[in-house]
Amino acid sequence: MSDSSLLLNPIGRVVSVLTDRSTAPRQGDEGAPDAWIDIDPAVADGIRDLRVGEEIVLLTWFDRARRDVLLVHPRRRFDRPAVGVFSTRSPDRPNPIGLHQVTILAIEGQRLQVSNLEALDGTPVIDIKPLLGPVSER
Amino acid sequence: MSDSSLLLNPIGRVVSVLTDRSTAPRQGDEGAPDAWIDIDPAVADGIRDLRVGEEIVLLTWFDRARRDVLLVHPRRRFDRPAVGVFSTRSPDRPNPIGLHQVTILAIEGQRLQVSNLEALDGTPVIDIKPLLGPVSER
Repeated sequence: MSDSSLLLNPIGRVVSVLTDRSTAPRQGDEGAPDAWIDIDPAVADGIRDLRVGEEIVLLTWFDRARRDVLLVHPRRRFDRPAVGVFSTRSPDRPNPIGLHQVTILAIEGQRLQVSNLEALDGTPVIDIKPLLGPVSER
Repeated sequence: MSDSSLLLNPIGRVVSVLTDRSTAPRQGDEGAPDAWIDIDPAVADGIRDLRVGEEIVLLTWFDRARRDVLLVHPRRRFDRPAVGVFSTRSPDRPNPIGLHQVTILAIEGQRLQVSNLEALDGTPVIDIKPLLGPVSER
């Protein structure tokens, strides 16, 4: 059963020194390196108002994750009970979307440098959103 | 060009009194109603550790959005300059993923009731994640 209306179109790719899932940090604030995002020229207009110093929410697609996992052992502690995957941030999940709060460190043409990103090199980027401030400032 | 590895499989659907985009609130904290999420029985194990009172991040797919929009007028203020879509929370964007921070109000079998959700009735739900607490508690 295929429904192309639910097909993601990557807007860019992660360029990172991280290439191996087994040694990657579990979250951005657990020692992840800075990384670059190569934005697809087709969506360049969409990033034109991003600025250095802004905090953004980056959505990625963990393309090396398993999608058939519903119960996981958080932090690979197999001595503890398995937990429903929607109570965890495991990359292995039915729709392996990564949610990363990062700061824009540099912008060079269609490349963004961001802080502390735990996604692997080559990971598709699927969306960028601003952090929401107070209602009065929207 | 189709790559089924980037195909989303909905894990549930929104059941809401909101049916019309033109009258829906723009964000959950701008007067959105409580709503139910019908979880697909195939992924029921994944929600088994969710509890009433928890704050979660709900990811939805705005299936009535336009995907060809790169510049938008925030809040439909056409007297102001258009802004790159990745600097906005507009549902119209290349991958129309909704990000909603909500509280679980009730759980009845495979249905979750959540607070202040601005997604329309029938909207596919694609992921649920816990809010991340301090590193020491993960």
